[in-house]
Amino acid sequence: MKYINTDHLRFLLYEVHNAEELLQYERFQAFDKEAFDMMLDTAKDLADKEFFPYYVAMDTDPVRYEDGKVIAHPQLKNIIKKSAEIGWIGASFDEAHGGMQLPNTVFGAADLILNAANNSAVGYLGLTSGAARLIASFGEQSLYDTYVPKMMAGDWMGSMALTEPQAGSSLSDITTSATPTDDGHYLIKGQKIFISGGDHQCADNFVHLMLARIEGAPAGTKGISLFVVPKYRPEADGSLTPNDVTTVADFQKMGQRGYATTHLMMGEKEDCRGWLVGQPHLGLKYMFQMMNAARIEVGLSATGTASGAYYASLLYAQERAQGRRLSKDGRKNPSQEPTLIINHPDVRRMLFLQKAIVEGAMSLLLDCTKMHDMADVSEGEEAEKYHLLLELLTPIAKTYPSEMGKVAIDNGLQVLGGYGYCMDFPLQQYYRDIRIMTLYEGTTGIQSLDLLGRKITMKNGAALQLLMDEVQQTMEAAMMYEELKPYVKQLGEKLAVTQQVLQHLMPYAMQGNHERFLADATLFMEMASTIVVAWQWLKMGTAAKKAMLAGGGAQSNEFYASKLHTMKFFFKYELPKTLTHAHVLMDNEVLTIVGEEELIR
Amino acid sequence: MKYINTDHLRFLLYEVHNAEELLQYERFQAFDKEAFDMMLDTAKDLADKEFFPYYVAMDTDPVRYEDGKVIAHPQLKNIIKKSAEIGWIGASFDEAHGGMQLPNTVFGAADLILNAANNSAVGYLGLTSGAARLIASFGEQSLYDTYVPKMMAGDWMGSMALTEPQAGSSLSDITTSATPTDDGHYLIKGQKIFISGGDHQCADNFVHLMLARIEGAPAGTKGISLFVVPKYRPEADGSLTPNDVTTVADFQKMGQRGYATTHLMMGEKEDCRGWLVGQPHLGLKYMFQMMNAARIEVGLSATGTASGAYYASLLYAQERAQGRRLSKDGRKNPSQEPTLIINHPDVRRMLFLQKAIVEGAMSLLLDCTKMHDMADVSEGEEAEKYHLLLELLTPIAKTYPSEMGKVAIDNGLQVLGGYGYCMDFPLQQYYRDIRIMTLYEGTTGIQSLDLLGRKITMKNGAALQLLMDEVQQTMEAAMMYEELKPYVKQLGEKLAVTQQVLQHLMPYAMQGNHERFLADATLFMEMASTIVVAWQWLKMGTAAKKAMLAGGGAQSNEFYASKLHTMKFFFKYELPKTLTHAHVLMDNEVLTIVGEEELIR
Repeated sequence: MKYINTDHLRFLLYEVHNAEELLQYERFQAFDKEAFDMMLDTAKDLADKEFFPYYVAMDTDPVRYEDGKVIAHPQLKNIIKKSAEIGWIGASFDEAHGGMQLPNTVFGAADLILNAANNSAVGYLGLTSGAARLIASFGEQSLYDTYVPKMMAGDWMGSMALTEPQAGSSLSDITTSATPTDDGHYLIKGQKIFISGGDHQCADNFVHLMLARIEGAPAGTKGISLFVVPKYRPEADGSLTPNDVTTVADFQKMGQRGYATTHLMMGEKEDCRGWLVGQPHLGLKYMFQMMNAARIEVGLSATGTASGAYYASLLYAQERAQGRRLSKDGRKNPSQEPTLIINHPDVRRMLFLQKAIVEGAMSLLLDCTKMHDMADVSEGEEAEKYHLLLELLTPIAKTYPSEMGKVAIDNGLQVLGGYGYCMDFPLQQYYRDIRIMTLYEGTTGIQSLDLLGRKITMKNGAALQLLMDEVQQTMEAAMMYEELKPYVKQLGEKLAVTQQVLQHLMPYAMQGNHERFLADATLFMEMASTIVVAWQWLKMGTAAKKAMLAGGGAQSNEFYASKLHTMKFFFKYELPKTLTHAHVLMDNEVLTIVGEEELIR
Repeated sequence: MKYINTDHLRFLLYEVHNAEELLQYERFQAFDKEAFDMMLDTAKDLADKEFFPYYVAMDTDPVRYEDGKVIAHPQLKNIIKKSAEIGWIGASFDEAHGGMQLPNTVFGAADLILNAANNSAVGYLGLTSGAARLIASFGEQSLYDTYVPKMMAGDWMGSMALTEPQAGSSLSDITTSATPTDDGHYLIKGQKIFISGGDHQCADNFVHLMLARIEGAPAGTKGISLFVVPKYRPEADGSLTPNDVTTVADFQKMGQRGYATTHLMMGEKEDCRGWLVGQPHLGLKYMFQMMNAARIEVGLSATGTASGAYYASLLYAQERAQGRRLSKDGRKNPSQEPTLIINHPDVRRMLFLQKAIVEGAMSLLLDCTKMHDMADVSEGEEAEKYHLLLELLTPIAKTYPSEMGKVAIDNGLQVLGGYGYCMDFPLQQYYRDIRIMTLYEGTTGIQSLDLLGRKITMKNGAALQLLMDEVQQTMEAAMMYEELKPYVKQLGEKLAVTQQVLQHLMPYAMQGNHERFLADATLFMEMASTIVVAWQWLKMGTAAKKAMLAGGGAQSNEFYASKLHTMKFFFKYELPKTLTHAHVLMDNEVLTIVGEEELIR
């Protein structure tokens, strides 16, 4: 069952991102390389047995809403149970929180495997994990004791309840209210939409981590608090009482049809209780812990999905014979046997494009999870460095896989021709599934505003400078190899162009013209993310070259040659897109800023 | 019901492409401008009443296969009947063939309306029209009398039966056989897949225009003949006898779920009769008449679909309030009322991008249909000129709307955020529907090989030279207006770059290295089609500028200002993509030609 290349994951962990470096820190002393490998094997085994075989079935027999109940595919029960059994939900939690303290780097690699096998299924686990971690990080001990062990056991599931119908992405406009009572809890009233995994028949309870506004709170995001709002509230005797949280609908979606997307109403009977997490009005700050992790998780999910599609299209191209190679006279000889379609240059281009996107995104994501781990185990300036790098790269690590994974799968579908469009082949499902990734957890537009408007400028550009230093180090390492020098040069030119673009844009911000500064933030995201992934490819190319020259690497020489070839592909076909991005970003014509409503019709 | 802007169609017909010029020719003497307008009004009325209201229903209640029968949405019966009543199926046929001799230009504009309203429904009509025209053009009178009047009345439907399971896009490998009998017909045996509109309950008979190989025919495409193979064969007494054509399946697709896609088996009982159309072994030549028309039809369908999606997302953006405009300090003031999302620059960019793609594609398609008409009414060198231009532009007119319409709808879906992904809004349906367009009638890869490998090089580049002359004329007209001069300059630069790219690539063809010459044909297509649509926008910009300065034009000044603005948008955001295309196409590194199979893994 080929939906991901675990050799590539090992190459990334051990030869590119040096995950073994983590073993020297106390936090990870329970592990060794064999334990990391075992985690990957365990995830692959779980994915092979419980996730991948149900990928299509969870789409054709989707989540449905009947008589007030959300019914998911019955396999979900096994998926939750088996995943909880291997400790998946709290794998990377602190031991003090009942976790394994598995490095995020290794968890990320394992998460890619599950997502490649069945992206809808993983969401349920990821949200439960994220919700439990929020309680563990910021909640009182009593909240922890009441909820977290049940969640880690997979008996109860968690959700992230932010969005409201009238507010959409604008969290400052949420109106769900929380009224204090004398009994230590709040009464919650309002509604939330698009709540992923918010209800189904395969768990006994749902623990919603919900944003709401305490009466009298300041307007905007500064007046938002975080609450635990369970579907059933646990009583002292262990029994469960309905908590006036009603699931009024399950949104039917184009894809990820195995993943529930609920509409919740709280407090219709004035009996919905919520428990404050941490301090009042700091809800959004706490939630950002979960949101940042969720953004990386979306990147992992999108990349996994694109990986599944890549191997489905590669398999087809290796088996399907059609047409002939062109001969010297430019004609095809019909008396020859048809050739495999993988031998047609246009098909090879579409395959390498998928590979370049998928493997490049994987490298970026594992670099981010490694930074997360390094920030956890470092102190002072070092910790701050990793923290800033992760802050800067998070919107890119969410957006590049979502946007370019979509492009990858589009090419994968095209490889199959008409069959790619038919329900008998999985490409159309991957195509539908991945389309939500640019919407989840902040759309591409919002991620782009975050990147250019906040992350690039924060602390006077400190994060950007740190990233430039990292890229510089990669370039210096690559300069050791003659074959890589042209690519080092190209990447260096792109860094210079990025600086030029920023020098062109920053004055708008300084003059207070923020709309103009940020008008094409999405194009800046496209440019920056393409360059960042080229950096990842240069890292991978350098590691491959080093292993080939040293001989006797962990992988075959063909494996390393394939990395080098794909790196060259990325530099030839993808990196030059930044020529266009830079040109457009430095064009002074203003065409999309309001003032000309009548021009759109 | 806004799914298309008919004012834009009138602007294209009368102010950009001068459809009134056609009225001076004898072929079109039955018409005047009012008759053209009436055709558009009739199509809009038909689309409003019979097409658009069933767009969603034909998706949610899709074509299904039950007990050997194909069941389409019952509304299809009305759609066929009402369309036939207004003479739609033979509208552009010669009067001698029972048609109206409506110019293709006007028919194309009307066809855009129907496709914008309901793309699945139009296919049934288009294929019936194309099949009837093939019989009328190349068949004997007896075939014409037997089939064409019934088809034009909408009682019988037509199909185009080319693809076979083992051959896919490679027509030289088809194996369906035709064995001559002494009774003037042939016995047909074989199977055909992906036969659009090949069977359903809403017509009495199906007339398949089928490619097959007469016993002993030469190998390859030179041995293919064209047959009429009906589902029921009409007897002398007017009764219908089953003709041993069995529908064994209806392919279930991701989109266009209202459009039947059948799998046909012929001759299981050795009793499937086919009647030869024209001469033996010339089948592919005849079929190309239908295929070329079908390629333009796919362009119209893709463009119409993207038009429907554009207006759905525009409507949403004009009604949905969310977030606030950025203030001088770069912050959002939560005490302000939320603004309409159309006021966010990123949303405006996504809307203008859709508009630029949709309206640009419409202009290109109507330019092509006008060339078709001019080729029909001209003689000698003039006719040859239009014929060559149409040959060159057809693969672009098929591919640009299919590929970029997909991008347009992707942006339309993004405008709606999470709602765009939900089945309650139509964006996801447009997104699924349009995805087939790059596969129909020759994939993008095949169209690109046709463009670079055949059309550019044919007659020593004569067609390309003619196109360059046309663009030059547009540029000269635009030079009259100061405001347009910068765009003339940009387009001129792009023509020069195209020449450079071709000078770089042609030597490979001359050296017999056709694989290398054509390896990146798809990128050449992207570049060429972007430049061609920029040419169309300069035409539109010039017409708009002219009308604004003259005053009292057919449309409002705001309408013309919107055209100019969108032209500028296309030149700013889309045309610079050719910087990247040219860069990649002139790169000498070879990475996608076979010889390195092991590199893809």
